[in-house]
Amino acid sequence: MKKLINAPDDVVTDALAGLAAAHPSLRLDAENKVVIRGDAPRSGKVGLVSGGGSGHEPLHGGFVGYGMLDAACAGEVFTSPVPDQMLAATQAVNGGAGVLHIVKNYTGDILNFQLAAELADDEGIEVVSVVVNDDVAVQDSLYTAGRRGVGATVFVEKIAGALAEEDAPLADVAAIAREVNERSRSFGVALTSATLPAVGKPSFELAESEIELGIGIHGEPGRERTTITPAHDLAGTVLDAIGDDMPLSGDLLVMVNGMGGTPLMELYILFAEVQRYIEGHGARVARNLVGNYITSLDMQGFSVTVTQLTDTLTRLWDAPVDTPGLRWGR
Amino acid sequence: MKKLINAPDDVVTDALAGLAAAHPSLRLDAENKVVIRGDAPRSGKVGLVSGGGSGHEPLHGGFVGYGMLDAACAGEVFTSPVPDQMLAATQAVNGGAGVLHIVKNYTGDILNFQLAAELADDEGIEVVSVVVNDDVAVQDSLYTAGRRGVGATVFVEKIAGALAEEDAPLADVAAIAREVNERSRSFGVALTSATLPAVGKPSFELAESEIELGIGIHGEPGRERTTITPAHDLAGTVLDAIGDDMPLSGDLLVMVNGMGGTPLMELYILFAEVQRYIEGHGARVARNLVGNYITSLDMQGFSVTVTQLTDTLTRLWDAPVDTPGLRWGR
Repeated sequence: MKKLINAPDDVVTDALAGLAAAHPSLRLDAENKVVIRGDAPRSGKVGLVSGGGSGHEPLHGGFVGYGMLDAACAGEVFTSPVPDQMLAATQAVNGGAGVLHIVKNYTGDILNFQLAAELADDEGIEVVSVVVNDDVAVQDSLYTAGRRGVGATVFVEKIAGALAEEDAPLADVAAIAREVNERSRSFGVALTSATLPAVGKPSFELAESEIELGIGIHGEPGRERTTITPAHDLAGTVLDAIGDDMPLSGDLLVMVNGMGGTPLMELYILFAEVQRYIEGHGARVARNLVGNYITSLDMQGFSVTVTQLTDTLTRLWDAPVDTPGLRWGR
Repeated sequence: MKKLINAPDDVVTDALAGLAAAHPSLRLDAENKVVIRGDAPRSGKVGLVSGGGSGHEPLHGGFVGYGMLDAACAGEVFTSPVPDQMLAATQAVNGGAGVLHIVKNYTGDILNFQLAAELADDEGIEVVSVVVNDDVAVQDSLYTAGRRGVGATVFVEKIAGALAEEDAPLADVAAIAREVNERSRSFGVALTSATLPAVGKPSFELAESEIELGIGIHGEPGRERTTITPAHDLAGTVLDAIGDDMPLSGDLLVMVNGMGGTPLMELYILFAEVQRYIEGHGARVARNLVGNYITSLDMQGFSVTVTQLTDTLTRLWDAPVDTPGLRWGR
């Protein structure tokens, strides 16, 4: 294994230190591994907290900042944070208007965020949780009952964050987060496995021209292994799977996301095919995101996330955001 | 080889189509493979043109937009564009105030940009060229007489672009571009080779725990192959090499750049070490950039670029920019 690290045990601590050093507008609670907006808590503003296992950067710490998350807690690589971390994050961003927990649907995250919400409730902090479960690839998975939460998390954090920035009440912020999740679907493809720093070898092996359709962001098995096809066909396979589950119609927000080890050039090639497919099916890519947003360490591969927009969702998507991972319009 | 492409011959065309589709504020001259700002040419504004071989995305096409480049021409992968492409880009952005060519120091690029400048001159377009040659690793290289042009190109394009946005005259824009180059140094490290789509196998091989110090962005040989060390030591090796060539003092602009296949987590781990080293040597990381900005296809590895700031350079660095690859403050 060759990685740019000091020691496998220190990767999360060291990466968070680097994130905070590079972005002085963020505050780091190093002990609890929580990244916090420098100006949090803001009185009267709903606090947005997310978190999960590390290895998916920029998710979640890279989405802390104006117009998106107020805090993110980082577990070890591919491991849920513990309730104490989530509680510390919740306390740090509580401005009196309540706190929204954005939770990807993995059993550990669900249980730990639930416990953290109960602990916060004991302290008089109102918490509402929204679960993201947008991955259409498989029902139930290695760490998940039901569908896995993947790319839609980025959209939920951005759009709910924009509404919270307007000082909307907790119920409204939670409702829009749920709406984004309900209107979103994702599907991922792996060309290679990721290598966990603590393990030192790939989690699974794919043959020379083999890919895995429906991969999870922790390398959880997908639908099938097959031979790689041209980008045009691969985009079709992925969008067929998404379209089988949700009609591709109207204005869509589309992300072509890299898994960490895939060059931007290839993501743009895929995006052109994705757009062609969607327009060929009578819908429109009204907004898009192409790049590495929810990754799986050094995995080569990609995922596509599609969200059916409404006027309100489009307005909130376009609203200013200022985080390490997403930044525009401010 | 597994790549998200349609066919090796089509990667540049397809990737440019995807870039233009994702960013409607850009215009694509598909025939000449030139990406152009939608509002170019702007009367009275110096036009900024860069370009080079593809495979280094987001460089250069991803840096076209407000406050940075007016146009970029894309060669085949790791191959210089031809003079006709550069001429088409120059014509497209000529607003009567002249055009600046920003050229990375590779023999093909130098010769072709020179010819393009002469052709433009024949048409009455004033062109000044600035050569970027910031890589301290080696003197002369596989495709270069003198030093290679690498990460400083991003800084030259951003800072000269900001000055051009203020309608500064061509001589001033060229002078600041040269100043940025003169005040910048870079050094790169490879953990793996890149694989060119048209070749289908890695350009070179590194053993299980072997790295190459001083690698070029086309996989050109560096100073030596050695065993990988912890990030702390690796940052020291790289900054020793840079510091031997230019004092690390005062306020610095520092980029920790990924080569395309390296996770963001590892780049942040490195950035923390880079900052620690620089502050330990009495200088300050006043501004930074951490991510994939000048890549080498799917290579795993990184480079560090350091620029000695002045008040003017800092002001121009902070100025608004709105491109696919860099975006803030507008």
